[in-house]
Amino acid sequence: MFRQTLFRRAASLFVEARAELPSACAAPSPCRRLYSIQAQEDSIAKLPGIDASKLSIAKSTTPKKLVSPQELVFGRTFTDHMLSIEWTASEGWLPPRITPYQNLSLDPATCVFHYAFECFEGMKAYKNSQGQIRLFRPDKNMARFNKSSARIALPTFEPQPLIDLISQFASMEARFIPDMRGYSLYLRPTMIGTQRTLGVGPPGSALLYVIACPVGPYYPTGFKAVSLEATDYAVRAWPGGVGDKKLGANYAPCIVPQLEAAKRGFHQNLWLFGEEEYVTEVGTMNFFVAIKDKETGKKELLTAPLDGTILEGVTRDSILELARERLVPEGWVISEKKFTMQDLASAADEGRLIEAFGAGTAAVVSPVRKISWKGRMVECGLREDQEAGEIAGKMKAWIEAIQYGDEDHRWSYKI
Amino acid sequence: MFRQTLFRRAASLFVEARAELPSACAAPSPCRRLYSIQAQEDSIAKLPGIDASKLSIAKSTTPKKLVSPQELVFGRTFTDHMLSIEWTASEGWLPPRITPYQNLSLDPATCVFHYAFECFEGMKAYKNSQGQIRLFRPDKNMARFNKSSARIALPTFEPQPLIDLISQFASMEARFIPDMRGYSLYLRPTMIGTQRTLGVGPPGSALLYVIACPVGPYYPTGFKAVSLEATDYAVRAWPGGVGDKKLGANYAPCIVPQLEAAKRGFHQNLWLFGEEEYVTEVGTMNFFVAIKDKETGKKELLTAPLDGTILEGVTRDSILELARERLVPEGWVISEKKFTMQDLASAADEGRLIEAFGAGTAAVVSPVRKISWKGRMVECGLREDQEAGEIAGKMKAWIEAIQYGDEDHRWSYKI
Repeated sequence: MFRQTLFRRAASLFVEARAELPSACAAPSPCRRLYSIQAQEDSIAKLPGIDASKLSIAKSTTPKKLVSPQELVFGRTFTDHMLSIEWTASEGWLPPRITPYQNLSLDPATCVFHYAFECFEGMKAYKNSQGQIRLFRPDKNMARFNKSSARIALPTFEPQPLIDLISQFASMEARFIPDMRGYSLYLRPTMIGTQRTLGVGPPGSALLYVIACPVGPYYPTGFKAVSLEATDYAVRAWPGGVGDKKLGANYAPCIVPQLEAAKRGFHQNLWLFGEEEYVTEVGTMNFFVAIKDKETGKKELLTAPLDGTILEGVTRDSILELARERLVPEGWVISEKKFTMQDLASAADEGRLIEAFGAGTAAVVSPVRKISWKGRMVECGLREDQEAGEIAGKMKAWIEAIQYGDEDHRWSYKI
Repeated sequence: MFRQTLFRRAASLFVEARAELPSACAAPSPCRRLYSIQAQEDSIAKLPGIDASKLSIAKSTTPKKLVSPQELVFGRTFTDHMLSIEWTASEGWLPPRITPYQNLSLDPATCVFHYAFECFEGMKAYKNSQGQIRLFRPDKNMARFNKSSARIALPTFEPQPLIDLISQFASMEARFIPDMRGYSLYLRPTMIGTQRTLGVGPPGSALLYVIACPVGPYYPTGFKAVSLEATDYAVRAWPGGVGDKKLGANYAPCIVPQLEAAKRGFHQNLWLFGEEEYVTEVGTMNFFVAIKDKETGKKELLTAPLDGTILEGVTRDSILELARERLVPEGWVISEKKFTMQDLASAADEGRLIEAFGAGTAAVVSPVRKISWKGRMVECGLREDQEAGEIAGKMKAWIEAIQYGDEDHRWSYKI
């Protein structure tokens, strides 16, 4: 009773709009669903999960004209349909729907507009020359999507039904996927809070939707190495923060620093952290560097560890696993550990910096030519006529071979 | 040329969807509008600003029934109309519109849903018994709104035209404002990015809108002191981050810690920062504490300084100014400086902690009874039968007297 009273006072005094929350979120244990990942015995687990068998499909009667592959711009041209699944705290996940691609109609008080109740994923469907469509490690995207949503009090879900639904959706949109190497269908699962009140509290309703856009190769004419500005005046992520989750909240604050870097002629920010100037991420990608160890002379592939400030990239994980399998036998050391901008600069000065690259779903890898840091330029191992190092090239080839099904691999998910 | 080439490569390689950005955002100085606050000579300043004289009004033909004052819930009941102003990077601010309150219809790829391009303000319109309506320091809200929007690459604006428009809007909705002490019309200016692409870049279009809801007194039956959980496992804000701006991004990540605190019987989080455990804010409010100095015995009113991790609260600023004017003559010392949870605990142990309270637009002040910290309870100076300290009570009375016009004051803005 004590707790219940206290929580009711919290609701009325601070949170203010809880009154509209469904009873599933009532005191004394507010919104048990948050902990459904850990606690499956939880009563909320009895609410309906995502049920792929209940999918309804309303086909578009005005199919779009295909954009020619050469004219595709990332994130601009969408397919005919979208997948939507509503959730409410009292009813759980409602039946999934595939409908014509259409606007969302939302009350201006909806919490996604005010408090950034939003998270997303980025994944791709690949078509090979025989027309076979594949996803790449969709289980990793679903796991991260659940972690992101739970962190901002949005609902979680069983991964497989959503993978099944995304597969059906991608199959329906197959005509939009060019069957050429480098092309794919970018899939954007998104979850938003849809509660229509201004009180700051856990959303009592949400919408999960997936939209899709055909995309061309990141490097249509081959790799192009980029230059970075080491950024310390703006800090992307912090221990105890949410920088390891794929939340909308992590993106808008990075745009002004990105524009500042562009103004000075750099493609992206290299996010440093702390007085030590630890190297964390580049733009919206994870960051890898290959160096020769000062003492042993051994070649080492390095990336920052998952300490809560680094996005858990699917490409990052794939590169690490492939490197451990295929580079270690060649004598490489593979490390997830903290390293500083000074470490990079010293390695460059001493001729030990072999190469550096970003890693993410969009580009697979993005080679780095140089980094501006404290008034100097740190060269990252590329010759002037060279746009990518050996490891970046190998990783791109290895991962794309799996993505397009040249190599039969457990990461490739046939739909 | 060098920069232009580089930026174009940045656009195509990383930012990906810049192609849709209007030409105002082209290289080599992307989106000058960002800096329009500092640089009025900027070319972008020539784009149309907000023009209150161009307001069009479409009145609702289905006026809502008033909710009885006793049944008002914060942020749940809205008025008949809303104010909207669209912006595009090529056209600037378009003519303002007051329309019936209605849903927003947005493409599912709109950047507000993916990257949290959103910021807001919270302010109130007060009606006295003669029917006169007043705002409270709207210039402060406008200044902060501009800082928030600029930080996430959304457009800025001249404050006065928006204050005029908000005044007109509030006047139109006058029937919704109860003319009783403690009641008011909560106004929620909101700005969202509306560009319809998935590329991560500055939005080429935005929507500023204002909605309004009548609200009752925060403490209908008098003050109710709250209890807090000192929170270190989750970090609200950090140096180089955006915790001092009123961005949506700062809110969703705080809900799970809030639910965790509620589960243990506490109303809100007291956000600590760093190994030193500096006291920063409480829930979504600034935090004040009154202590007796150990050496001098002087009474001191303390709050954390605006070091980039603290929201620049209008109520915080008002309390500081009133305290300097009215408490200093009584022998008080007023300080904006860092203090730690240990400082508070020591003051409590030594009988020097006089009182503590949160401060924000919703409650004006919210007295604090106790703080749970490292397995102990820090009592904040209230007797068991007491719900507010002297300073909290005085501040609430002083500020409300200005808000409702009992006292003629430059902070009160008659509309």
